Amino acid sequence: MSNSIGKFFTVTSFGESHGRCIGVIIDGCPAGLAITEDDIQRELDGRRPGIGVAATSRTEEDRVEILSGIYGSTTTGAPICLLVWNKDVDSSQYEKLRFLPRPGHADYTAFVKYGGFNDFRGGGRFSGRITAGFVTAGAVAKKLLDIISVEVLAHTVQIGGIKAQPKTFEEIRKNARENPLRCADLGALDEMTEVIEKAKEEGDSVGGIVEGVAQGVPVGLGEPVFDTLDGELAKALFSIPAVKGVEFGAGFSLAAKRGSESNDPFTIRNGKVVTMTNNAGGILGGISSGMPIVVRVAIKPTASIAKSQPTVNIKTIKSTTIEVKGRHDICIVPRAVAVVESMMAVVLSDFALRAGLLPRVIK
Amino acid sequence: MSNSIGKFFTVTSFGESHGRCIGVIIDGCPAGLAITEDDIQRELDGRRPGIGVAATSRTEEDRVEILSGIYGSTTTGAPICLLVWNKDVDSSQYEKLRFLPRPGHADYTAFVKYGGFNDFRGGGRFSGRITAGFVTAGAVAKKLLDIISVEVLAHTVQIGGIKAQPKTFEEIRKNARENPLRCADLGALDEMTEVIEKAKEEGDSVGGIVEGVAQGVPVGLGEPVFDTLDGELAKALFSIPAVKGVEFGAGFSLAAKRGSESNDPFTIRNGKVVTMTNNAGGILGGISSGMPIVVRVAIKPTASIAKSQPTVNIKTIKSTTIEVKGRHDICIVPRAVAVVESMMAVVLSDFALRAGLLPRVIK
Amino acid sequence: MSNSIGKFFTVTSFGESHGRCIGVIIDGCPAGLAITEDDIQRELDGRRPGIGVAATSRTEEDRVEILSGIYGSTTTGAPICLLVWNKDVDSSQYEKLRFLPRPGHADYTAFVKYGGFNDFRGGGRFSGRITAGFVTAGAVAKKLLDIISVEVLAHTVQIGGIKAQPKTFEEIRKNARENPLRCADLGALDEMTEVIEKAKEEGDSVGGIVEGVAQGVPVGLGEPVFDTLDGELAKALFSIPAVKGVEFGAGFSLAAKRGSESNDPFTIRNGKVVTMTNNAGGILGGISSGMPIVVRVAIKPTASIAKSQPTVNIKTIKSTTIEVKGRHDICIVPRAVAVVESMMAVVLSDFALRAGLLPRVIK
Amino acid sequence: MSNSIGKFFTVTSFGESHGRCIGVIIDGCPAGLAITEDDIQRELDGRRPGIGVAATSRTEEDRVEILSGIYGSTTTGAPICLLVWNKDVDSSQYEKLRFLPRPGHADYTAFVKYGGFNDFRGGGRFSGRITAGFVTAGAVAKKLLDIISVEVLAHTVQIGGIKAQPKTFEEIRKNARENPLRCADLGALDEMTEVIEKAKEEGDSVGGIVEGVAQGVPVGLGEPVFDTLDGELAKALFSIPAVKGVEFGAGFSLAAKRGSESNDPFTIRNGKVVTMTNNAGGILGGISSGMPIVVRVAIKPTASIAKSQPTVNIKTIKSTTIEVKGRHDICIVPRAVAVVESMMAVVLSDFALRAGLLPRVIK
Repeated sequence: MSNSIGKFFTVTSFGESHGRCIGVIIDGCPAGLAITEDDIQRELDGRRPGIGVAATSRTEEDRVEILSGIYGSTTTGAPICLLVWNKDVDSSQYEKLRFLPRPGHADYTAFVKYGGFNDFRGGGRFSGRITAGFVTAGAVAKKLLDIISVEVLAHTVQIGGIKAQPKTFEEIRKNARENPLRCADLGALDEMTEVIEKAKEEGDSVGGIVEGVAQGVPVGLGEPVFDTLDGELAKALFSIPAVKGVEFGAGFSLAAKRGSESNDPFTIRNGKVVTMTNNAGGILGGISSGMPIVVRVAIKPTASIAKSQPTVNIKTIKSTTIEVKGRHDICIVPRAVAVVESMMAVVLSDFALRAGLLPRVIK
Repeated sequence: MSNSIGKFFTVTSFGESHGRCIGVIIDGCPAGLAITEDDIQRELDGRRPGIGVAATSRTEEDRVEILSGIYGSTTTGAPICLLVWNKDVDSSQYEKLRFLPRPGHADYTAFVKYGGFNDFRGGGRFSGRITAGFVTAGAVAKKLLDIISVEVLAHTVQIGGIKAQPKTFEEIRKNARENPLRCADLGALDEMTEVIEKAKEEGDSVGGIVEGVAQGVPVGLGEPVFDTLDGELAKALFSIPAVKGVEFGAGFSLAAKRGSESNDPFTIRNGKVVTMTNNAGGILGGISSGMPIVVRVAIKPTASIAKSQPTVNIKTIKSTTIEVKGRHDICIVPRAVAVVESMMAVVLSDFALRAGLLPRVIK
Repeated sequence: MSNSIGKFFTVTSFGESHGRCIGVIIDGCPAGLAITEDDIQRELDGRRPGIGVAATSRTEEDRVEILSGIYGSTTTGAPICLLVWNKDVDSSQYEKLRFLPRPGHADYTAFVKYGGFNDFRGGGRFSGRITAGFVTAGAVAKKLLDIISVEVLAHTVQIGGIKAQPKTFEEIRKNARENPLRCADLGALDEMTEVIEKAKEEGDSVGGIVEGVAQGVPVGLGEPVFDTLDGELAKALFSIPAVKGVEFGAGFSLAAKRGSESNDPFTIRNGKVVTMTNNAGGILGGISSGMPIVVRVAIKPTASIAKSQPTVNIKTIKSTTIEVKGRHDICIVPRAVAVVESMMAVVLSDFALRAGLLPRVIK
Repeated sequence: MSNSIGKFFTVTSFGESHGRCIGVIIDGCPAGLAITEDDIQRELDGRRPGIGVAATSRTEEDRVEILSGIYGSTTTGAPICLLVWNKDVDSSQYEKLRFLPRPGHADYTAFVKYGGFNDFRGGGRFSGRITAGFVTAGAVAKKLLDIISVEVLAHTVQIGGIKAQPKTFEEIRKNARENPLRCADLGALDEMTEVIEKAKEEGDSVGGIVEGVAQGVPVGLGEPVFDTLDGELAKALFSIPAVKGVEFGAGFSLAAKRGSESNDPFTIRNGKVVTMTNNAGGILGGISSGMPIVVRVAIKPTASIAKSQPTVNIKTIKSTTIEVKGRHDICIVPRAVAVVESMMAVVLSDFALRAGLLPRVIK
């Protein structure tokens, strides 16, 4: 079940970029959760190519359909199948490039692993497009988390070399969805846009960093020693194409710190045990501490670029070059924001169920 | 099965720091693999506190015992139980601190999650000591990987602010095990030692970074879209206490790069398809590319420090302070090296079996 | 993942009797397997209500659609989504009976378990109709088994009190699909038909027994001690609605036997080790022995009957009676034949993959 | 993880008949459950060879040891390792018979599957002895079920051709543990004993049937459509060596019945919905109905018999004969009673946790 994630709230992904559809099955969602196609569509729209510079020109408007598991606007306890039909598909370019793996893409590894039988069109299973399914699953997960007052937000904190200033949870909620870069630091927007535009002009692409924050997470989510909260979140986040690093709290910067700086001292606030700082990103020993879960996700530059790159014809085993035309995001980071949010919600829902914090039937 | 990892080569961890033993069950190891207690002991010794400055004063010499699954020096196909008995245990200090969670430790989260029933002595399940079991499992995994000529090495690349110079695989193999800091850059040893000694003097601790490299990994390991090679490695690595970040290849630095810089162009070397660079760390689309797997693991400073820190009595819910005396590593990084290596070997073995690259019976 | 079965060849079921569709996701099928919608449709047709007396009057003609995982008539290694759209659905009766659980049905248990949120129309997830999905998955599994020359056949061996005479594998292959009762003993057809007709006249229903036989199964399938071949087959078969018993080989009759009668002595035939008898039904210690796998499945009479039965209004908690009108099979046994075959094929495929007897890419 | 069962209350079995030990790891047991070695030992004693005719002469007294997961007489939430050391082991006979598979045993299938590397001594992993571990796990499960007032009992209902008269739950509780045959029908004891004695005289063995009953099971256990309560129970029961059939309620006898006879009509008793009969054995649609769970398990005659039997030398591939001397039960049925009880308790605990009916921390 390599295409499934979660033990209790299990999401199975299927579909290909240029196949008939993209979809997910959610197994284990409690019965009685109120949710409609509109609720899911709203989340899906958050992932849609922005109107701004970062956008691909694929104009497709994804519409989610509920095929099972929801009856009369509530979940039934049965597997939920959510589907997005593919339209506006032009596979002609891919036929031509079938044996020319694009650098930075899974074309080569998929070809070898699946003996050339993989659906290569549009990257097939390895296209960012499959994350449309992730977002529909995330929409259901978020509805679940609402019940226990957990809120998950993600936002762009870096594009190319441009870093956003730290923002409060309220600012992220207010600002991030309101601009095409999904950045809560409105002051950084111009510079970030410029970086993207310049890359576009040069037939190139840029990477960045997305930060996810979950607020209201109760103490006790996570099942050490292997099904840790951080480990499962990391696994879920690495399933997003282009992710190359995941860190929690102060992350890699802790390597250069002292224990006296990095430890988060405990104190009491409003009668509750909290930590004074949150270098741990809300996770201690693989278990949520009650502080906000903070994770940062490194996203490499879009692999598809117009510039000529060396590659190999994997049929003839001869060196050649490739220029990837097609419609591609110059910067995938803003679109990844909704996906990071979704995968966090999926993992947190799974652990909330595992911890018994969510009922099997919602009343 | 929160204490199990791997789908085919499944490692289940059990035991507590101050309980009777630390152990693992390995389920799914092919029959016919030649392995002895000595082979496993050798790996376990690699995790032992060094003679140098970084070491804890716990003098315990861990001896592994094979309880099942190996008969006459070969695996039988049955579950392998490997056990290390605990000796030299002094739990007195922990009794006193039972309700005073140490900042940076899992004491608080474990207390809440398990309702105070958790074995708190020495950190119980959350002690670094349980990684002794990880290393015994890794010893078996490494023997398996030998069969397909995969070699896994880890080494210290940063301690505190001191960074090691990049080294070749051969240098890592030659140097890293020969010094107590497990650092392949011998030129950095003095500075790293100094950083540790200074922290020790000040009753403090330091963090660092461990890099793991796997060479000889065939193309095709990893099962997207959720059971990706990077995702499973990350999950496994986050199960090591104190790990706060995981990145592959150029990792977080890719955020500031262009696609034309970060993409690894394909070329042909000795008739084989390879990439000219390895910014992807040997993984494309969650699948191994045939290039070395390169992962970097951020390790926070040891949480237990002699310095006084604010904490809370979780029974009385009153603020107080704590000074952690006991025997603790000033810097856990060198000991984490063997553990990183082991967890990488465990994950790679699992995927080699899933990909059908290792037989069910070794002849 | 309560709606998934199989560890390597994983089938996830979704859809409801009167919802939009019935479907499955198959995850883990090797790439390169040649299969078309027609291949799958053929199997699905084998489950269709016969023209005979046993048939429901639901006239729906199920058509399978491949939504993912198959490209250009071969599997790609990606999850395969197979879908059957529901048509010809009349849910009006079910609305009326919503709070009157039908004796012998899951109406009551589903109502309590899912807090009344379950899709009750047509039995929802508990309808025999969901086995249409099982059969589409079985079609893929059978194609896989073809590669290693494993053939699975099922047939009706008892309907009501009427027992079929034992038949050879060749006779089963020749006869069973050619009559609406799926019975290889053509001599028993008249009596069986009579039993069904009589029950129909009286507004009643009848049960029976289906036998499944798998020929050509290599030695070594099954993963003891818990993932035994018999255990997994039993689990899979109990997922078919109305199954109340599963036995292998001589099964329950062995209880009254002596060891000297029940043990199957080993001998050599054509240079191969075989057993002289097959009381074990081809399974020893949870592992296939190379002899035919023989399993018998007890199927209770169809729960829906026209006769008046006592029941309870689960809203008012008052006693009442129910007469189930609708369109129902008098005897579900003949339709279960294709389903038993399919589930056997699914489990055997899973174990063949787990044992490394099927490649990850078929060439 | 072929040696693990249960998704939430997960039992992993390890150890071999003539190896160092037999053991289990229980992962997922809630914290705070009061349990001691004595509690577990008591259950283990119930599996010990009786003093009567059915007994093996292996005099070993099994003593359970708690190695992890229990601290100060309560579970901690960590994996529980329970171990029984092997003593009194004489493997000499097995060395001689290494290449002569005993008819009815797993010797042959294990030899082929594991390439001859399996620990063949005393049947290794395939010995009934490994069920000692099952029983220790069952002891913990029963303690859990106590909390929700579920009681599981098993008893011998048939030995050879001798059938016991049906008994009430109270009679089973009172009588079954008090006689070496574990039979609640004291009137059948003499005849059953005679059957066993006669088989013993003739160097033969006999089979039988064990019935398991679980009382107090709440409505709603079981996770259709694949993780059904009956399916998981069947899978667990088929992991007991020698089990060849499993049926629920009226089981195979339903094949010859009418729907009007087999359906259990609903009614109201003491304000609760119940069924008037229990042909379904307490399970409808894979979900517990609130009625007693009733399962019957067919146990084949002990495979090891003194009589000469044809077999094959699997090294030379030549026909020969074998007489199994050693110490063997003439009738394994009475010893299987405790094991059936244990496996039922394990499965019910798992489902109670999955359904959220047991807390994660017991207070």
